[in-house]
Amino acid sequence: MASFVRTSRKIIGIGFNYAEHAKELNNALPKEPIFFLKPTSSYLANHGKVEIPRGCVVHHEVELGVVIGRQGRDIPASQADSYVEGYALAIDMTARNIQDEAKKAGLPWTVAKGFDTFTPISSFIPKSAIPDAHNINLWLKVNGIFRQNGSTSDMVFQIPHLIQHISSIMALEEGDLILTGTPSGVGPISEGDKITAGISLPASPLSTIATLEL
Amino acid sequence: MASFVRTSRKIIGIGFNYAEHAKELNNALPKEPIFFLKPTSSYLANHGKVEIPRGCVVHHEVELGVVIGRQGRDIPASQADSYVEGYALAIDMTARNIQDEAKKAGLPWTVAKGFDTFTPISSFIPKSAIPDAHNINLWLKVNGIFRQNGSTSDMVFQIPHLIQHISSIMALEEGDLILTGTPSGVGPISEGDKITAGISLPASPLSTIATLEL
Ligand SMILES: [Mg+2]
Ligand SMILES: [Mg+2]
Ligand SMILES: [Mg+2]
Repeated sequence: MASFVRTSRKIIGIGFNYAEHAKELNNALPKEPIFFLKPTSSYLANHGKVEIPRGCVVHHEVELGVVIGRQGRDIPASQADSYVEGYALAIDMTARNIQDEAKKAGLPWTVAKGFDTFTPISSFIPKSAIPDAHNINLWLKVNGIFRQNGSTSDMVFQIPHLIQHISSIMALEEGDLILTGTPSGVGPISEGDKITAGISLPASPLSTIATLEL
Repeated sequence: MASFVRTSRKIIGIGFNYAEHAKELNNALPKEPIFFLKPTSSYLANHGKVEIPRGCVVHHEVELGVVIGRQGRDIPASQADSYVEGYALAIDMTARNIQDEAKKAGLPWTVAKGFDTFTPISSFIPKSAIPDAHNINLWLKVNGIFRQNGSTSDMVFQIPHLIQHISSIMALEEGDLILTGTPSGVGPISEGDKITAGISLPASPLSTIATLEL
């Protein structure tokens, strides 16, 4: 499963899963999880270089990724945890201006979310390293300054609910990645910016579980 | 490559790529190809059963699928053909009511396009079986009655243009499938309907290249 980046066949991104972030984008909170697909061709390994496509305003969205361990359809929330193999730290890079235009025109979000290098991803985090996935800190800095710093305890829909909802529509498969949404503080990055992100246990900001440096 | 259904990591669907179909959905013709992703979990083999999710108005869209043979980024239209390994006959099943709601709300098309069984697919068609991919007939019948009957000569954006555009945004990889859009005549299917579809050479409606029976 350490190789999920090479084998996963879909990346599912959740939209507006933190109330403060929904507010900053002027979106109402959804009644059921909203999700979109990112292509696996958008994965970028740690220490890679995010490409900023010409004319794009690219926003960082730091997220907890959930790596699926086995195939399932119509998974009840009560059994969802047994489908989770582990986690990853990810950034859901988003061409915000293209997404805004797509929203207005009623068009797919695919381009806004799908450029090459738009899914920086840490190595696989075994489940045992995160005792409670709904109580960890997620942060992101641009050039050393905090831009995002949130807790997964603020998710609108928790992971079992996400897995139940998604798998009622599309089968989840081994290696699939669910990006569980971003806390507030999203904003643009520029060519040459130094981006660092991490997840840590809440008790101690020093107890880092994973980091990304781009 | 015969096994692309098991190995492909993305399905890219093109929207409004036939003028008559764009008109029937009241959409203006796009300036550049519009595309979305379908999950590979939505593949359904020939003779399978399309599931109609509760509350969904499911429309058939018969399409020519293009199977990519090797990895490429920023592929010029002039070289696109060398990335095409072959073809497949596909139906891009679409929950039209969910898509209409998503368009109005500015939300992703993912659910409307992504249910399990929503991409019925033929076996792999080698490139040599289709001398000119822009001059073949595509048809679909429901309970023996023609619903769609078009020619790929009516595509708004031809295959090399599609490959150039998509690969300028996201890398194409071996086994990826591009659904090139549907001719007019889309409409709802019901539980128990017999759906048949085919592609044939234009010279003779009898010279069928591939069929689907669902
Ligand atoms: Mg996101
Ligand atoms: Mg590019
Ligand atoms: Mg279609």
